[in-house]
Amino acid sequence: MSRKNAMSKQTSRELTRGKLLDQGVALIMEYGYHGAGLQTILQSVGVPKGSFYNYFPSKEDFSAEVIQHYIAPFIAALDSQLERPDISARQALRNYFQALIEEAARQEFRGGCLLGNLMGEVGETSEKCRIALHAAVQCYRDKLAEALRRGQQEGNFRQDLTADTMADLLVNQWQGALLRMKIEQSIAPLSESIERLLNDYFSP
Amino acid sequence: MSRKNAMSKQTSRELTRGKLLDQGVALIMEYGYHGAGLQTILQSVGVPKGSFYNYFPSKEDFSAEVIQHYIAPFIAALDSQLERPDISARQALRNYFQALIEEAARQEFRGGCLLGNLMGEVGETSEKCRIALHAAVQCYRDKLAEALRRGQQEGNFRQDLTADTMADLLVNQWQGALLRMKIEQSIAPLSESIERLLNDYFSP
Repeated sequence: MSRKNAMSKQTSRELTRGKLLDQGVALIMEYGYHGAGLQTILQSVGVPKGSFYNYFPSKEDFSAEVIQHYIAPFIAALDSQLERPDISARQALRNYFQALIEEAARQEFRGGCLLGNLMGEVGETSEKCRIALHAAVQCYRDKLAEALRRGQQEGNFRQDLTADTMADLLVNQWQGALLRMKIEQSIAPLSESIERLLNDYFSP
Repeated sequence: MSRKNAMSKQTSRELTRGKLLDQGVALIMEYGYHGAGLQTILQSVGVPKGSFYNYFPSKEDFSAEVIQHYIAPFIAALDSQLERPDISARQALRNYFQALIEEAARQEFRGGCLLGNLMGEVGETSEKCRIALHAAVQCYRDKLAEALRRGQQEGNFRQDLTADTMADLLVNQWQGALLRMKIEQSIAPLSESIERLLNDYFSP
């Protein structure tokens, strides 16, 4: 095989892997870890059943990668708000959550957060998923803490709680509110939670 | 069949139903809705496979009943704290959550809350479960609001937030903290959440 062919084979493999991860996010979000069938994921990407294990060692390893794949765009979205020179960190946080709330309404309250759903379903039965979930939540929480810390420096958040403590409260409250959203079929739990924490409890 | 025999058959049926619901709580808690097999639940209670449908019309109906069966003792536990004439409503809430935190430590952070796990997993794919989850969470949240309202009257909680708003925040925060507990293998998210809300944010 020529070097060019080898490279294009590598690229095609990476593309298929990426598509499998995208479909993994969509189907695990809708049906859960146990409810999402590997065969459905493979079919939707056009990969023959037997070849899954050319891409991932097991469903558990696949799901651990799905978790990383899922959280990356959220961190990027918050980063792109934080990089705006024209707004405060508090405004960046508000914009970020407002966009998530609008997206949840567009999606008609479906899905929630893949991390929250999987923490509930397999947080204790799959050690690989638990470790991947822990790393993803920590990374997300650290990004929120960075924003809250900058907001403290800008005088928009209280100083008597650490940014880490506020980030933990925000993550927990948001996760709980997403669960409530799904069963109440309403974005009210999300809006109310963000309003109470960012605009009230965290105020200086 | 004599009347006595009919009654004892009825009682035995109710006992078996109760055992199936108990096992449903345990297994759905550990493996999730899709991961918990009906056959395992039946075997553990000694009920022949084919006779499940004598007790429940479907796995979905069974799970909806499991949800009600699960929440009842939590409401009873909070009630029994609230009925104590020697303590304030705030102390009753503290005692109630402290007991849950100690139990979570004894269980080595396993399980979390069946309602939270199921809201994440099947909150949007099973309408029967969604309705049962909504009713159970509402009932639980109303009981917390009752305690918070009494705490406001006793001067121990702030008056500028409604008891319903505080109860919603408490439910969401607790659900999120339980998910974090599972992946961090620590009760710290629970203790920190209760401390921050009951002893700080909700203070007058």
